[in-house]
Amino acid sequence: MNPVNIGICGLGTVGQGTVDVLRRNCAEIAARAGCSIEISHIGARRGADIDGITVSTDIFAVAEDSHVHILVELIGGTTVAKELVLKAIANGKHVVTANKALIAEHGNEIFAAAAEQGVSVAFEAAVAGGIPIIKAIREGLAGNRIEWLAGIINGTGNFILSEMRDKGRDFDDVLKEAQALGYAEADPTFDVEGIDAAHKLVILASLAFGIPLQFDQAYTEGISKISTDDVEYAEQLGYRIKHLGVARQTDKGVELRVHPTLIPDQRLIANVNGVMNAVLVQGDAVGPTLYYGAGAGAEPTASAVVADIIDVARTLNVEPKHRVPYLAFQPNALNDRPIVDINDIETAYYLRMSAQDKPGVLSNVAQILSNAGISVEAITQKEAADGELQVPLIILTSRSVENQLVSAISEIEALDTIEGEVTRIRVESLG
Amino acid sequence: MNPVNIGICGLGTVGQGTVDVLRRNCAEIAARAGCSIEISHIGARRGADIDGITVSTDIFAVAEDSHVHILVELIGGTTVAKELVLKAIANGKHVVTANKALIAEHGNEIFAAAAEQGVSVAFEAAVAGGIPIIKAIREGLAGNRIEWLAGIINGTGNFILSEMRDKGRDFDDVLKEAQALGYAEADPTFDVEGIDAAHKLVILASLAFGIPLQFDQAYTEGISKISTDDVEYAEQLGYRIKHLGVARQTDKGVELRVHPTLIPDQRLIANVNGVMNAVLVQGDAVGPTLYYGAGAGAEPTASAVVADIIDVARTLNVEPKHRVPYLAFQPNALNDRPIVDINDIETAYYLRMSAQDKPGVLSNVAQILSNAGISVEAITQKEAADGELQVPLIILTSRSVENQLVSAISEIEALDTIEGEVTRIRVESLG
Repeated sequence: MNPVNIGICGLGTVGQGTVDVLRRNCAEIAARAGCSIEISHIGARRGADIDGITVSTDIFAVAEDSHVHILVELIGGTTVAKELVLKAIANGKHVVTANKALIAEHGNEIFAAAAEQGVSVAFEAAVAGGIPIIKAIREGLAGNRIEWLAGIINGTGNFILSEMRDKGRDFDDVLKEAQALGYAEADPTFDVEGIDAAHKLVILASLAFGIPLQFDQAYTEGISKISTDDVEYAEQLGYRIKHLGVARQTDKGVELRVHPTLIPDQRLIANVNGVMNAVLVQGDAVGPTLYYGAGAGAEPTASAVVADIIDVARTLNVEPKHRVPYLAFQPNALNDRPIVDINDIETAYYLRMSAQDKPGVLSNVAQILSNAGISVEAITQKEAADGELQVPLIILTSRSVENQLVSAISEIEALDTIEGEVTRIRVESLG
Repeated sequence: MNPVNIGICGLGTVGQGTVDVLRRNCAEIAARAGCSIEISHIGARRGADIDGITVSTDIFAVAEDSHVHILVELIGGTTVAKELVLKAIANGKHVVTANKALIAEHGNEIFAAAAEQGVSVAFEAAVAGGIPIIKAIREGLAGNRIEWLAGIINGTGNFILSEMRDKGRDFDDVLKEAQALGYAEADPTFDVEGIDAAHKLVILASLAFGIPLQFDQAYTEGISKISTDDVEYAEQLGYRIKHLGVARQTDKGVELRVHPTLIPDQRLIANVNGVMNAVLVQGDAVGPTLYYGAGAGAEPTASAVVADIIDVARTLNVEPKHRVPYLAFQPNALNDRPIVDINDIETAYYLRMSAQDKPGVLSNVAQILSNAGISVEAITQKEAADGELQVPLIILTSRSVENQLVSAISEIEALDTIEGEVTRIRVESLG
């Protein structure tokens, strides 16, 4: 086959990694793809000097270059990136992108435009970096009705929680180190509040369940309020706290939520530490499967970008019906199952409260939970520190509907014998 | 697109599972594939009664049925299965198979015949059951130079080793239970001596490194000589013993070996227990990635078979150059790197010997290793049991070439102060 020309827009970490991998492994890549993959044009605002490659400071010049077959969007953001991708599509170019925000927020529009033009849009690098999780769900598990998936899909958050557990350090302390190491941005909101994870979760849920992308429907809750006490108490109960993205098919619709979660420590995913990512997928035929690897970084992300380039190059000129659909399901076969409101979801809960160390307190709390139809699965009362009248009381509940649990918590907080707020963290058995 | 007709040969566990999954999930499968997948013919020697489907007791009738587009070979074995698959290919049919022995031993011939006829041969179910590991290596990591892979790819062996560790039970005892549970055959050789794992490893190595299938070159060593003492001593040193298939690119060629292996217990793959499988793949760009799931069973295997059917259905009538190559690399781009003889491989080693409990023994052993250029990384001498004059001596060595280690062991065994044979288990850091 003839060489396939690609145009790379954006020469940051991932852009440079992609250039490096394509050049270093060009022989193996050609042997797999059946054609050579040539970088014919690079668009980078600050310019670049790479021998033998046209470089434009106007990235839109790449989208207008008639020699470019595949435009690789690695500039990030959702404004210029969207304009660039739509321009490339309008010009009949195929697109590969690593941009999770772009796909999660504007994917429906982009895929519609691409379908109209009969071009591919591939985005393996948008979720969990180098782990081929999109391909696994979209193709590898295509025979399954996927029941649920749960992922550690933000490396920064997982690094922070891992350090808190390993070394007993508190959140703010580890966050500062993560920023110094370059794992976290100066404004860490995107990572630690779950927005980045929600972008990725929304994409995975669409692929798994055949629903349109609905970023505005995802529930997000961050990890900034997790204390070292909670990490330690969870450990004593046989759990680890992870910042999990969870998507699940239920009778009420699809759950789509990112929040700190207690996971039994014997689960493989509970043992994924540091900046690594992992996604656990439960299919009705295959059962549980797990995919693990680096969720970020120049070359892990480039690995996914290059895999997409090879896939797109292989079917460059075939009829679109012979290609894998953008979101795993044929566009006309997407379903409109509702996203379940967070108040209506059902999980088990970890509760921590500060209780007066005297008779009757425990039974009052238990009574409130019982009245709400919530069973207590485990309870631990810690010893009071010297001179303290309050003791920490930790409860694991049965699976309960969120709004019933929230009402019960309000009642508990109103008790004279309970001081301050009740900490509440969701628990998933993932079994 | 028009419906795609499949013919299923073999209605054992996996065959029945495939029928069940295709029927139960037919709506989702059609929504993904863009066409309906219809079982039009079943070949099963003992017959069957499935409404609306032609059933032949002569499985070759399926290969001759002009309505069948894809023949699904699930009869197992390598004699009739090979004849059947070659007949189907000669008749212009695409093939999906779960048969690891067939692919590992006759894949080169089968792929050559299929290339000649321009048909697909897909075999995701042949390795690690429901885990989409073939797709991951062949497509998901296609941008990488794959450096090595290591897998727990025999569930029976992993079940036995997991039970030995968890419960201190010995090999024979657990094997009997595995047989009673149906995990192990009456003749367990295939599983516990590593032949089954070698079939799978040979396939993975071809996909990873672009080499032809070379089953006769794989080294296999079973787990039947692993004692509960070794499991326990390994544990004390921070290791787990797993029956691992390892394939690695080295300067000398490709290593291809199945043997019991000590793995550091903090590695995720060391925590894969019971009948579950997992494969760790190291790419130059992506770093380490791991894939975990059920390696056997009716529906997990069917999950992989159905994924292959969908892939094949999607590109049924495109030119072969637009399809993914059988062994990941274009047939004319396979390389002929040699397979390294087991005597020339390099790993670290765990050694256990029975030594006289008196001065000078340790230094004699250490001197022999030192003379062979082998460093001692850790050494543990256990206390003598009451009335015993011999004590167990456990040594972890540095990475050494196998034949040098074997010579050193002979010298150690010749010492008056060492009784019996030295137990030797390879160690891989997998980091």
